[in-house]
Amino acid sequence: MNETVLYQHGTLALLVPGLLTGTLTMKKLLQHGDTGIGTGEGLDGELIILDGKPYQVNSRGEVNVVSDDFKLPFANSHFAAYRPLMTVENATQEELHDQVLGLTHDNNTFFSILVKGTFTDVKTRAVAKSERPFKSLAETAKNQSVFNRKEVAGTLLGYYSPQLFDGAAVGGYHDHFLADGHDFGGHLLEFGTVTGDVQVQTFSTLEQHLPTDNAEYRNHDFTKDDITGVIHQAE
Amino acid sequence: MNETVLYQHGTLALLVPGLLTGTLTMKKLLQHGDTGIGTGEGLDGELIILDGKPYQVNSRGEVNVVSDDFKLPFANSHFAAYRPLMTVENATQEELHDQVLGLTHDNNTFFSILVKGTFTDVKTRAVAKSERPFKSLAETAKNQSVFNRKEVAGTLLGYYSPQLFDGAAVGGYHDHFLADGHDFGGHLLEFGTVTGDVQVQTFSTLEQHLPTDNAEYRNHDFTKDDITGVIHQAE
Repeated sequence: MNETVLYQHGTLALLVPGLLTGTLTMKKLLQHGDTGIGTGEGLDGELIILDGKPYQVNSRGEVNVVSDDFKLPFANSHFAAYRPLMTVENATQEELHDQVLGLTHDNNTFFSILVKGTFTDVKTRAVAKSERPFKSLAETAKNQSVFNRKEVAGTLLGYYSPQLFDGAAVGGYHDHFLADGHDFGGHLLEFGTVTGDVQVQTFSTLEQHLPTDNAEYRNHDFTKDDITGVIHQAE
Repeated sequence: MNETVLYQHGTLALLVPGLLTGTLTMKKLLQHGDTGIGTGEGLDGELIILDGKPYQVNSRGEVNVVSDDFKLPFANSHFAAYRPLMTVENATQEELHDQVLGLTHDNNTFFSILVKGTFTDVKTRAVAKSERPFKSLAETAKNQSVFNRKEVAGTLLGYYSPQLFDGAAVGGYHDHFLADGHDFGGHLLEFGTVTGDVQVQTFSTLEQHLPTDNAEYRNHDFTKDDITGVIHQAE
């Protein structure tokens, strides 16, 4: 258990052409951390792991705890050892992101942010699980639901990746959200303001695990995929 | 000790603007493998680690074993557990590279090749160590020596990285060479043909370690660097 390591299974890039097979179980993901984010096979909802508990927000907006054998094509996890960074009052999402970078100077570093507080005008999304044969990320992501809350207390869990790793990970911030009442959450599209406590955890190592025993992944020709173009439309 | 893990310290990208400070000791690199490649502080020669012994080819063409406190800005290592793949006879470098991919289908996978045999028309290079303030990779690499051998018995140690990781690593193959007589080697620019035994080792995980305690790295603005352009000119 090393708190300076961020574990990643799969890459964001492999979702682009529709390699949506779950290639890691939740059980294995949790061996690499008690905190994390991800998606299920066929883009089955949005995952957020807090204190070792893996919550899934599905496309009906329901929040469920998934089982050990739930499978994921792409996910991150790490063992939480956050340090308090600042408190914010009515900070916009951009202000939050910028202030964290301003204080940490971690632009070239993988790190996580954990924000507990009250958020306004929160917009999240969750994709509906698609079945085989999987279509591309752009096609699959069309079948998504968007959820809104005027004001909600909850937790933002985000990962920041250096721009160099864009495509493998999401360059910049990638935030998921879970309401304290466990009745709202998902991939965080935007929010108005947040008032609460901001914690960060810096990683010196990215442990990048690839699904090297998956034939579809092994044999796919990525050279024809517009990886970063599609990602930044979808994310 | 995990034979499916490729360890990498630093990124190729950080060399581009001249972040050439040695941020890892050889001692620490060897804790992550008995086999590897790299360069020293200020691009001090070309490293090749075989059977736990770290050889450096300097710009005078001399081969030395470096000490535990030798520092590196960028390096790879792993614990050798190669499997025999094929024997080749008078194969060109392109044929070697293509045949390995043809047999392994490892285009989307990090792997290493180890080729022991007799090579013809071998051309290697080693960069001369530069002093602070370091210049860019393009400037520093101008001060390199190129060495040639008509025919030489030796070992090619190479790493292959999926194209998605180009910039972090060298997308495609990155080969170093050491002659059996320990009197010739370096970064392998090209060779005519090789006759010998080819072994490979596949990795499911890239353990990407970044110099997150180095202020120059932390504070550098990479957005203005033409990372992949410069790399593929230099490499």
